[in-house]
Amino acid sequence: MISKAKVKFIKSLQVKKYRKEAQSFIVEGAKGVKELLQSDFQITWLAGTSDFLGENRDSISLKKVEWVETTERELATSGTFSTNNAALAIARLRPNLPPQLKNEFVLVLDDIRDPGNLGTIIRTADWYGIKNIIASVETADFYNPKVITATMGSFSRVHVYYVSLTDYLFGTDWPLYGASLTGKSLYDTNFHTEGFIVIGNESQGISPAIHSMITQHITIPRIGRAESLNASIATAVILDNVFRSKK
Amino acid sequence: MISKAKVKFIKSLQVKKYRKEAQSFIVEGAKGVKELLQSDFQITWLAGTSDFLGENRDSISLKKVEWVETTERELATSGTFSTNNAALAIARLRPNLPPQLKNEFVLVLDDIRDPGNLGTIIRTADWYGIKNIIASVETADFYNPKVITATMGSFSRVHVYYVSLTDYLFGTDWPLYGASLTGKSLYDTNFHTEGFIVIGNESQGISPAIHSMITQHITIPRIGRAESLNASIATAVILDNVFRSKK
Repeated sequence: MISKAKVKFIKSLQVKKYRKEAQSFIVEGAKGVKELLQSDFQITWLAGTSDFLGENRDSISLKKVEWVETTERELATSGTFSTNNAALAIARLRPNLPPQLKNEFVLVLDDIRDPGNLGTIIRTADWYGIKNIIASVETADFYNPKVITATMGSFSRVHVYYVSLTDYLFGTDWPLYGASLTGKSLYDTNFHTEGFIVIGNESQGISPAIHSMITQHITIPRIGRAESLNASIATAVILDNVFRSKK
Repeated sequence: MISKAKVKFIKSLQVKKYRKEAQSFIVEGAKGVKELLQSDFQITWLAGTSDFLGENRDSISLKKVEWVETTERELATSGTFSTNNAALAIARLRPNLPPQLKNEFVLVLDDIRDPGNLGTIIRTADWYGIKNIIASVETADFYNPKVITATMGSFSRVHVYYVSLTDYLFGTDWPLYGASLTGKSLYDTNFHTEGFIVIGNESQGISPAIHSMITQHITIPRIGRAESLNASIATAVILDNVFRSKK
């Protein structure tokens, strides 16, 4: 049974300000909570159905997590998603630290505002082995429950660092790849062994300040008539071509 | 000014049952309504801000559309999206007719339930020049306002036909490509000049009945650790590889 006070606290964690205050966020659903249990995130509380608790007994006791048994009905009313039928956990935020980069491709998100897009980008990045993402401070919050859920567990493996992009990228000697409608065909691009791949805002594209820092303008070849691609779709197609070229 | 009766009618068109009854659907936002005006959909009514009406005067009078001038505030309260700041139109549904296929790639959607995914798939299909999609009857409704909006105007160029997939595909001599985690690498697949590309349900994948009809099992190579890709992401990566191989 989840106490009223706990439900209130969980609800408050849907809001960024309260997540920051409590230095906590929520993870919902079987897949996400299982990945959380395997990660090095510090879990402070967990509610699970008897099935979920039974299946994950070992990892829960290994992590010494405070837990309660709950029902599907209670999960549906306590969390963000009415479809959660397994578990909900509260974990501690990680500090916002710059990653140590080494011979890798890094995504740079220039104001991705939609939480679903950000979550899907993180999931896709994880598929293609991307470990680090640099995000503008206006990008959707990594700990937004919609982001966490859309990552399908990949939030535990991909690190997102929020920073002023112009400050961060200033003076880098790595190539900066940016997609636009007038660049070189993605199919003819020779990707280096490392680099930043910039993904622009859903409606504005790459901002002028970042655009001027791009060293390699690339274009996803188009056959039909759509004016543009969704930001997470463009990310996936670019990453697929990068890793295809490395095989 | 939009009348109370019209607002009520517009709201009713968020529900599939009422769309079917009235044989009508709504298109919202500048991009979507502009594309609608360029299409052969029959538009029965349009509300636009003075800016939108001014910019699109010619196409509105060419189509002989009944229109009213409205405000951003009125649009926000009448439609599905509070962010619509330009226009809203009502148009007639098209009949659900089987497409005439000829030397082309066709997407087959095996229960894509999420309207945002369906809309993004339609937009991506349009980018890659796909004209026809065959969808199971359990797939999200093409005319759902969330689908229409997520297509970013591509709803006017891509035809979606709803049918029992097993009935439709029975006896076809075209190859059926289906993505799974155990198929042949997408990078090593030789795509024919025509074929069906099956995209499975978000959580269940391709259903057993359709799975048994697949002639070419393909896999999107994975470098990292995500368990799967979002359905619209998988669609984009497959289509990009198909058309890359045809260049």
